[in-house]
Amino acid sequence: MHSLFYFTISDFMNNELIKYLAGFITNNRFERFNEVIEYRTRYITIILEDIYQPHNASAVLRSCECFGVQDVHIIENNNKYSVNPDVALGSNKWLDIIKYNTLKNNTVSAIKQIKKKGYRIVATTPQINKVNLDNFDIKKGKVALLFGTELNGLSDEALNLADEFLNIPMFGFTESFNISVTVAIILKTLIYKLHHSNIIWKLSKKEREDLKLKWLKNSIKNSDFLIKNYKKKNNNISIF
Amino acid sequence: MHSLFYFTISDFMNNELIKYLAGFITNNRFERFNEVIEYRTRYITIILEDIYQPHNASAVLRSCECFGVQDVHIIENNNKYSVNPDVALGSNKWLDIIKYNTLKNNTVSAIKQIKKKGYRIVATTPQINKVNLDNFDIKKGKVALLFGTELNGLSDEALNLADEFLNIPMFGFTESFNISVTVAIILKTLIYKLHHSNIIWKLSKKEREDLKLKWLKNSIKNSDFLIKNYKKKNNNISIF
Repeated sequence: MHSLFYFTISDFMNNELIKYLAGFITNNRFERFNEVIEYRTRYITIILEDIYQPHNASAVLRSCECFGVQDVHIIENNNKYSVNPDVALGSNKWLDIIKYNTLKNNTVSAIKQIKKKGYRIVATTPQINKVNLDNFDIKKGKVALLFGTELNGLSDEALNLADEFLNIPMFGFTESFNISVTVAIILKTLIYKLHHSNIIWKLSKKEREDLKLKWLKNSIKNSDFLIKNYKKKNNNISIF
Repeated sequence: MHSLFYFTISDFMNNELIKYLAGFITNNRFERFNEVIEYRTRYITIILEDIYQPHNASAVLRSCECFGVQDVHIIENNNKYSVNPDVALGSNKWLDIIKYNTLKNNTVSAIKQIKKKGYRIVATTPQINKVNLDNFDIKKGKVALLFGTELNGLSDEALNLADEFLNIPMFGFTESFNISVTVAIILKTLIYKLHHSNIIWKLSKKEREDLKLKWLKNSIKNSDFLIKNYKKKNNNISIF
């Protein structure tokens, strides 16, 4: 009962804070936030294992942002994930990027954490031909798409933890697509399936508010100062 | 009558030459040629105007090869098209790459030549929202997809010559995909539509033989010497 009560207050406070901060961006901008948030999803997520070419890393973020995939999980073992701003075009600012880099090998720990959140781990590898992308069943549950490095693909640890394997139909001599191309083709196909399904894939009310607050903070100069001031003013406010 | 007669002889000669050269590669390799050639098409082609980042140029070639798109037209005005071998993975060896670089500005001349071959010119630009990719009618005729530079997109000359405009549905703040990603998403969608249509999209018998000969030449060391020798030996052969 207590936690529900507190949640309601914090919820109300968030809403008020959003209204307050929205006053510091243009109406058009805030409307755009509301439009974009309608297409945000955590039903599909991306896990990148040790991607090392900045133009690939950046193009992947850009595709996720364009398709509304909110969370991107980055496993850094041997390679630090760096972004090329000319390719990413600021898309990383709108996403939740979750990094796994505290251990010597972060793959197992990262995938297990994501599995605990209810995701089926779907590895994409041209070597193992299991499910053709066009036949992939999006309705079976939340999907975390796992992609490996440019040169060697996924590690054995990652492959062992995968629940399913996915491949893109190919018709030439070349046996794989470029990594950023692979991500984009799969997202295009699965997001289309998702939007045309009756799955509940949109963010919850709470998730939307948290995200809107985050976007506002990222879009307003000195937002920390504004929020501090706002909270000070409203500290003694009587809510009911 | 005469030209038909000569064509028949040259056709027969080509076929014999293919058989001869096939003896210099493994059976598996030659079988792969026959498999891949079944999925080659000139119903869809690609025109790249002034792409300058080698990783993009290379990823585009790789995607074309994987999807069976045989011809890639490269317009070089300000930028020379160079390939990054780590990204292209040799895919350019299997394609027909047609370059337009003799004039100061090659765009108009290139597009007009391609139009003459019966292609509808379809420009991809996020600024002009005309036909959504998912609704694009593949049955209306051969398609040449026109893509512009990384920074500024297509030139005015190119846009003026376009017959149709295509856009990929996008749901985020970022207003465009990376160029190699754009090409891949469009090809994935249109090749799927093509394979599931009743359009005659495969290469003709003559085109297949020419291509097979080209692939054999590219795959065999000293193929020029072998062909010269073969022709010398068979010069006085009586065909009928």
